[in-house]
Amino acid sequence: MTYRPLEISTVTDYIRDTALMGSIFSKDETLVAEDLADGNVNLVFRVSNGTTSKTASVIVKQALPYARAVGESFPMPLKRISVEHHALTVQAQYCPQWVPRVYYYDEDMALMVMEDLNQHVIMRKGMMQQIQYPQFARHLGLFLARTLFYTSDLYCASEVKKQQVSLRINPELCRVTEDLVFTHPFIDHPGNHWNPRLTEEIDEIRTDSPLLAQIMDLKDRFMTHAEALIHGDLHTGSIMLNQHHTAVIDPEFSFYGPMAFDVGSLLGNLAISYVAQGAYGLNTKTVAEYRRWIAESIQTIWTVFSLEFRSLWRTYAHSWKNEVYIDQYLHRLLRESLGFGGVEIIRRIVGLAHTVDLEHITDNEMKTYAEITALRMGRLWIQRSHQLTHIDELVSLMREVAL
Amino acid sequence: MTYRPLEISTVTDYIRDTALMGSIFSKDETLVAEDLADGNVNLVFRVSNGTTSKTASVIVKQALPYARAVGESFPMPLKRISVEHHALTVQAQYCPQWVPRVYYYDEDMALMVMEDLNQHVIMRKGMMQQIQYPQFARHLGLFLARTLFYTSDLYCASEVKKQQVSLRINPELCRVTEDLVFTHPFIDHPGNHWNPRLTEEIDEIRTDSPLLAQIMDLKDRFMTHAEALIHGDLHTGSIMLNQHHTAVIDPEFSFYGPMAFDVGSLLGNLAISYVAQGAYGLNTKTVAEYRRWIAESIQTIWTVFSLEFRSLWRTYAHSWKNEVYIDQYLHRLLRESLGFGGVEIIRRIVGLAHTVDLEHITDNEMKTYAEITALRMGRLWIQRSHQLTHIDELVSLMREVAL
Repeated sequence: MTYRPLEISTVTDYIRDTALMGSIFSKDETLVAEDLADGNVNLVFRVSNGTTSKTASVIVKQALPYARAVGESFPMPLKRISVEHHALTVQAQYCPQWVPRVYYYDEDMALMVMEDLNQHVIMRKGMMQQIQYPQFARHLGLFLARTLFYTSDLYCASEVKKQQVSLRINPELCRVTEDLVFTHPFIDHPGNHWNPRLTEEIDEIRTDSPLLAQIMDLKDRFMTHAEALIHGDLHTGSIMLNQHHTAVIDPEFSFYGPMAFDVGSLLGNLAISYVAQGAYGLNTKTVAEYRRWIAESIQTIWTVFSLEFRSLWRTYAHSWKNEVYIDQYLHRLLRESLGFGGVEIIRRIVGLAHTVDLEHITDNEMKTYAEITALRMGRLWIQRSHQLTHIDELVSLMREVAL
Repeated sequence: MTYRPLEISTVTDYIRDTALMGSIFSKDETLVAEDLADGNVNLVFRVSNGTTSKTASVIVKQALPYARAVGESFPMPLKRISVEHHALTVQAQYCPQWVPRVYYYDEDMALMVMEDLNQHVIMRKGMMQQIQYPQFARHLGLFLARTLFYTSDLYCASEVKKQQVSLRINPELCRVTEDLVFTHPFIDHPGNHWNPRLTEEIDEIRTDSPLLAQIMDLKDRFMTHAEALIHGDLHTGSIMLNQHHTAVIDPEFSFYGPMAFDVGSLLGNLAISYVAQGAYGLNTKTVAEYRRWIAESIQTIWTVFSLEFRSLWRTYAHSWKNEVYIDQYLHRLLRESLGFGGVEIIRRIVGLAHTVDLEHITDNEMKTYAEITALRMGRLWIQRSHQLTHIDELVSLMREVAL
């Protein structure tokens, strides 16, 4: 079948021609479609067998040859669905409980039919309502440890891993990250936009040569360190969850890159929410309580991650058995994560793609204060990334900056 | 044409069927072949138009599906000739004066016909005769700076470089390096062999956990850091030269790897010669003088390399303009080079492939002393690689250890 973008009027006909009729859906039942697209780049539909009393539903995700939110001026390769499909397949091998199931994959149509996570919400939105997710930190710590360890040279045969590195290059989407995360926010570029009251703070960042050198070093690591098959875009908008379950979605930026980029992106986005909580007009106790939960989550993610990673290492990494090296490796990952996290925080305020955590603050005074705090946090994370030795220091740092 | 290994009796017929008759050679002249193979892995013939008064000659290098010196039990892919051919092509783009010309390439026969460097000697052998090469250090400094800079993300477009990384993986030969350089020498492995009087020294290395952790870190960098198209086997046996010209040969181990691996391999092999000079039974003055030349060469290689690299960076690396970062980058390369060099020194005494610099020492007392000195040197290079800030410190270190 040649590629054509689906529409709400054609997606049910498409599904009716697949083997999903007779597996997910009964052979002859009537299907109903909803348009769900609210991300930046893809078409997303829900197809179900009823409007009120549906008993079965799926998500249809289809790539467009450009970013939906920007338009045809921002071309993106259709092949990103195959990148996402492959990453979901690998992640499902090691963490089936934390990724959506894929029911159907159509490479020509650049389309996947996936599990409908309709009992889950996007984490970023849940955090804007101060919802605590008691399982989240443990799940993400394990997800990170397993997906990163099992796809690295610590576990894989040398030749197999090199073939995978070669097959899984993702030049177009890596380029998006290189530009939007590591480059444009730190120079004059038309894609950037920010609250004009931050200009002084941003000028200071852009003229701080040692800071910019550290950011270049992180960009170099992103571009050259093929450590593991990383998610590549692991922010709180790529996590859907509820009190019991957690699912990591949207790995279309996946490629063999530095492990700490995933860890850092996640921690950086948690820190943005941490800062933003103070600007939602909530009472002090609520803010303090939710911040405490975020801080604990950060500690738990790292603790669970490093325990699981160490345990997998001791069990499987036969050529790398050396306790001194394991310790150094984990320390390096922690320091690099802090660096990547700091860049993520800054680019979400200065660059093209902002976060709703900060953007929906209506009081301009409060918004400016939160954004300046976040910029300072990002900067400090990068600066301290050379000396951090324990995750608790990161949490203390967050408390100090947010006060 | 299907692959068949050439022999001294068939190589001239092979050449007669190529377009080289009429370019390098005259149409109907008689060709004579010599068998030159003295490396470990390939067939090498010289084909010329006469035995005594030859006016034209070429080198025919053909891969075998296994390592010649070891036999069929050590399989090596024929594809390594295409790796070498590609690397020579890229190097010739930036350093035509320092690589042999390729006249003819036959992929099916896994064969290249190349410039006959019959006015040059293998550097390792020249150094065993205390020959000083006044141009060598400057040539190698420039060769390293140009081949590494121009194939890195500092110069190449992000997407182009990633495609190249993917095309140029070299899993089988990288595996040889991972095993023979970074792994086997530090564990019990049947491929290792050494002077039995070194056993105590080697046991000490193999039980030094912090040292082994540093070696693992270097192995991890070798396996994951796709910085530039490196030569991959740049020792003094891969350099042919005379007083005026220098040629870097045999890049069949080439792939996108850490820049410092090339620099470190070269410096490590120079250090082996430095140590070995003391055991050749020469008079003290000759030893001191040649050692001084080696030490100056090491300083010059690094100085020329870093000046040229910095100058290319300032001219072409538009997205990476930051003097603080350039300094940090070059410091990192120096420290990593020291680490890789240290591993190279040790593996040449403990592992499968030794060097003739040390192996041809006939006095067992002297040989043992030189090998112990080299092992200590290798160990110190690795240990000091975290703190080195200037090439002069390396040279002082060499002087101290060799005394």
